[in-house]
Amino acid sequence: MNVFRRSITIRTFSDQYHQIIFSFIYVTELSYMNMVSTPNIFCLVKGAGEGRTLLNAFDQALLTAGVGDTNLVRMSSIVPPGAKQRKSITLPKGGLIPVAYAHIDSGKPGEVISAAIAVALPEDPDLAGVIMEYEAKAPLAEVEEIVRQMAQDAFEYRNRKLGALFSTGVEHTVESCAAVFAGAVLWYE
Amino acid sequence: MNVFRRSITIRTFSDQYHQIIFSFIYVTELSYMNMVSTPNIFCLVKGAGEGRTLLNAFDQALLTAGVGDTNLVRMSSIVPPGAKQRKSITLPKGGLIPVAYAHIDSGKPGEVISAAIAVALPEDPDLAGVIMEYEAKAPLAEVEEIVRQMAQDAFEYRNRKLGALFSTGVEHTVESCAAVFAGAVLWYE
Amino acid sequence: MNVFRRSITIRTFSDQYHQIIFSFIYVTELSYMNMVSTPNIFCLVKGAGEGRTLLNAFDQALLTAGVGDTNLVRMSSIVPPGAKQRKSITLPKGGLIPVAYAHIDSGKPGEVISAAIAVALPEDPDLAGVIMEYEAKAPLAEVEEIVRQMAQDAFEYRNRKLGALFSTGVEHTVESCAAVFAGAVLWYE
Repeated sequence: MNVFRRSITIRTFSDQYHQIIFSFIYVTELSYMNMVSTPNIFCLVKGAGEGRTLLNAFDQALLTAGVGDTNLVRMSSIVPPGAKQRKSITLPKGGLIPVAYAHIDSGKPGEVISAAIAVALPEDPDLAGVIMEYEAKAPLAEVEEIVRQMAQDAFEYRNRKLGALFSTGVEHTVESCAAVFAGAVLWYE
Repeated sequence: MNVFRRSITIRTFSDQYHQIIFSFIYVTELSYMNMVSTPNIFCLVKGAGEGRTLLNAFDQALLTAGVGDTNLVRMSSIVPPGAKQRKSITLPKGGLIPVAYAHIDSGKPGEVISAAIAVALPEDPDLAGVIMEYEAKAPLAEVEEIVRQMAQDAFEYRNRKLGALFSTGVEHTVESCAAVFAGAVLWYE
Repeated sequence: MNVFRRSITIRTFSDQYHQIIFSFIYVTELSYMNMVSTPNIFCLVKGAGEGRTLLNAFDQALLTAGVGDTNLVRMSSIVPPGAKQRKSITLPKGGLIPVAYAHIDSGKPGEVISAAIAVALPEDPDLAGVIMEYEAKAPLAEVEEIVRQMAQDAFEYRNRKLGALFSTGVEHTVESCAAVFAGAVLWYE
């Protein structure tokens, strides 16, 4: 953002006793470039849902996860340098929320579906962290093990020292038509 | 957005006749957090297109829908509280436009493809509305019935009183290679 | 952005010798609508990667392409009017970056995978350009020829005079588990 300041001093009365100085300050927005700021917090969320359709099941899963009344914008999967983790997060209703997520659905009763994400954070706070997503028709333990390995791998081939690794996920046995969702929401504080 | 104002008064001449007061106002951007505002209008759009490839057919469908020269960013599907519906919408060329949409394509001549969206708005304007999308190789009547039910369901399991429900869609019989698109664009006014 | 300026002059001392004029300038943000600005530069990037999983392979491909530590937000595929091409681009780590891309992965050793994009720019700088993406289990020469035709087609049915057409892509023979990526990043300068 370019904020230009101009101070102009005009002497309007020059008699002996009066000095009037006006200070004008112009705040203009010449070539204002409004890119989206890089988020500075993140929060892990997860949920499972059933519905009459797969999309309704997904919508239910989002509601369970606490992000159901927002507009999730999916992105590839980086924790910005220095971003802080929050246990919970308040998002504007209908807001455009950047998120990385794992998601799977199924209309086959009895089937087990799981979604998990892992977050790898660097020792060096000036470097980016990595979010990995994995989902499968399998128990959560399996899915979560894989996604943790994925996050570790991402640090290994980046030659980046791992400071912390954590993961979360959700497993659900399909009743009629279900979806599971595990995500990392990025936002601002 | 944090705009900090500081007024500093400096008396530089203290002789009897001169008083010079400078007012400095600094507009700084300390910890300026530029998240995207929540949109406040929405507009339903739809279109069908044929093309040499499926992506060109989709591009044609977007042009028919009036959103062909923009950069659509797909999102999960909420109408922000209080957002107003517009019959038409002017979008910046190449702009980054949040949209929820249904979309299906086919390279099988004679096949019928349909895409529809439904919007459920709440009685209470402080609550969010829901956009649902559905698409199938089926007549529009079928597809639109399903998507309307999906939106109603979304309100039912939210325990949210329905104020209004509407839908739109498009059906197309494939000539050679075709796509249909029905979307809800969110934007600002 | 609405920046309101109000100048209020208050005479606080009215004795003969002193005149104090305060200029207050309020910068307020009434009905500030923070939509994302339309990007004004673009940069073509590409990469191939191998990994233990398909997502890690994709992550590696992004790193090779120089966009691996950012949050890519996928969009439909327009070059904003007047946007300038850059040979390279510096992106904020973890930043939310609009991108159009082609992408394909495979876990079948020996398979050839290719991803390519083509950019068509108009003669008239007030009109939008088009980005087309194509990917296949095929040599790059084939994939790139198709994607160039797609971009030309997009201009033909827009009745838009072509000023320039260029393309890039990447071909990779799968070792164990691989992904290729070719994209057009939009950003600001």
